[in-house]
Amino acid sequence: MKPTRRQFNRALALGAGAQFIPNLYAQTEPRKTGYCIVGLGRISMQHFMPAIKTSPKAQVTALVSGHRDKAERMAAEYGVPASSIYSYDDYDAIAGNPNIDAVYIALPNSMHAEYSIRAAKAGKHVLCEKPMSTTVAEAREMIAACQRAKKKLMIGYRCHLEPVNQRAVQLIREGRLGKIQAIESAFGFNIKPNEWRTQRKMAGGGPLMDVGIYSLNACRYLTGEEPVEIDAHSSVIDHDGRFTDIEENISWTMTFPSGVLASCNSTYGASMPGFYRVHGSQGMLHLENAFNYEGLLLRADINGAEPFMMPSPSPDPAHFAAEAGHFAECIQQDKQNKAPGEEGLRDIELMMRIYDSCKRNAG
Amino acid sequence: MKPTRRQFNRALALGAGAQFIPNLYAQTEPRKTGYCIVGLGRISMQHFMPAIKTSPKAQVTALVSGHRDKAERMAAEYGVPASSIYSYDDYDAIAGNPNIDAVYIALPNSMHAEYSIRAAKAGKHVLCEKPMSTTVAEAREMIAACQRAKKKLMIGYRCHLEPVNQRAVQLIREGRLGKIQAIESAFGFNIKPNEWRTQRKMAGGGPLMDVGIYSLNACRYLTGEEPVEIDAHSSVIDHDGRFTDIEENISWTMTFPSGVLASCNSTYGASMPGFYRVHGSQGMLHLENAFNYEGLLLRADINGAEPFMMPSPSPDPAHFAAEAGHFAECIQQDKQNKAPGEEGLRDIELMMRIYDSCKRNAG
Repeated sequence: MKPTRRQFNRALALGAGAQFIPNLYAQTEPRKTGYCIVGLGRISMQHFMPAIKTSPKAQVTALVSGHRDKAERMAAEYGVPASSIYSYDDYDAIAGNPNIDAVYIALPNSMHAEYSIRAAKAGKHVLCEKPMSTTVAEAREMIAACQRAKKKLMIGYRCHLEPVNQRAVQLIREGRLGKIQAIESAFGFNIKPNEWRTQRKMAGGGPLMDVGIYSLNACRYLTGEEPVEIDAHSSVIDHDGRFTDIEENISWTMTFPSGVLASCNSTYGASMPGFYRVHGSQGMLHLENAFNYEGLLLRADINGAEPFMMPSPSPDPAHFAAEAGHFAECIQQDKQNKAPGEEGLRDIELMMRIYDSCKRNAG
Repeated sequence: MKPTRRQFNRALALGAGAQFIPNLYAQTEPRKTGYCIVGLGRISMQHFMPAIKTSPKAQVTALVSGHRDKAERMAAEYGVPASSIYSYDDYDAIAGNPNIDAVYIALPNSMHAEYSIRAAKAGKHVLCEKPMSTTVAEAREMIAACQRAKKKLMIGYRCHLEPVNQRAVQLIREGRLGKIQAIESAFGFNIKPNEWRTQRKMAGGGPLMDVGIYSLNACRYLTGEEPVEIDAHSSVIDHDGRFTDIEENISWTMTFPSGVLASCNSTYGASMPGFYRVHGSQGMLHLENAFNYEGLLLRADINGAEPFMMPSPSPDPAHFAAEAGHFAECIQQDKQNKAPGEEGLRDIELMMRIYDSCKRNAG
């Protein structure tokens, strides 16, 4: 436990300050978990790595990139030695690097499984971005590989650690909304041409796999149930080369065992800020910017109570720091993490069912 | 044409004010359209009748009710002579009352068709509340009866005359949002027990027929298209006697010819304020309280522009006054109204398809 300023001052006053001097103190804290960043794209460089700087539990200790120049620039910024920069060719050599405890897989979706499995084989824990994989079989292999290697596997579901989403879940679990009846959720954006996300081979699908997954996952954590029926439709409106391979728009309805109905939308063809509304017999809640990195705003209107409002904490905590820190803590304390591989697998299974339903409904 | 203040002042300045003095002016205006209110429930007494007081084009001239006491109280308030109060038994006698130009049908849904058709046969124009009827056959008979009688038929779709909804439509038609891709909409509420709305025989269905119809109709006026595919699911969660006959929750997805996907929810088991979000390639719009009598708030976020905000005009115009006035004007000027029987019929047809899909998906 880190001493508070008051404890520290009191200790100094008692002449016992020596026990708190940084060096001695550092010896009693577990070593920061060292992450090897696999893939230097936007999410790594603009989000995960800057955030991890603020984490007391984690640090960047190695990099994997196909671009040595870029990797060296980032290495300089994060104090990573040249010997801890890897290419995809010598990726398996991470096995021999004791400063790497875990990998953070931020590659195109189709590469998640391979690089996660190789990391587990190299004796490293795996934090893999969502979607976990592009097929159910791959997701199962990832789980099995981590189990065989006795390494932990977590999927990058930020919202499982994000306080506003978690407050929404808590209000529901406490019964504040009464019996939940229905949910609306959506998330999408207008994608630029030539992104790897528009190629099925790399992305495994369209907006559903990338951003629709947030709504899907939210409906599951909000209800605490798994959908029994799924009905889905997709469409392409813009024949401009972006959607030769994937859906542009997708809508799906899920029926949960309790009878809760959820309506979801996703798109790569329009502005569609993430949101959900949850409707219960005693009230409703609405989360704006539900899946953003910041600027979330929860409003709950509960019968007979003043509206409950909760914005993202200010200053906004870095969601990625929470994620990296949580997984580090789970590694350090040998605990189960809040978004294990099985959680990711369920979404992959459900997304495959959503795509199957689209095909049936189009056929 | 009513003179503007400027015309009036100019006329006075020219010494020609006499032509505008109220009495003379009144003679040149068409007589106010006289409405016979059929059914003295909440919507008549709390909304339509108070609103019509503010309309320069319409007035209440007769009442039909099964409760003579209540009818006499309302007659006194609205200056309706005792001779213009009817019971359901002598309803057809409205034919002989020259002060009745039109009826306003505000009965349980299952009675809409019969009382509309009898009004047409009595030589009266018909303004009928939504949903127009409980079956497609009835809706067609209503249209045919009004055509045979050469009387006008309008369905009480307030939103077709409501300025904030119409501004949303205009933004879309002007192409400000680019190509529309997807819509979310919902509307519902937690119904009290023992309302006629919970009995299929009187209501024709559940929340879909009553409030879901707003979302359905909105998706049609927002896109200007008719859905080609419909997929729907319904559920009952509360086995408390309210839903022995009707659905509690319903979700449906519509695919429009252009590829637009719309996700809609409705419920009688939870608070579910009416809203829609329309997502286009150049921006989106969000209408809060979309189907309420007041307090609507439109926000459009269009690429490269400041957010466009439009609340309900203040003071809020009475939607029912606009409706009663518009239909009166159509009668006076022999014009087609903005929500004719054919518009109502389309929603009835689509709602029957939604229910059919629910059955197929449950079966």
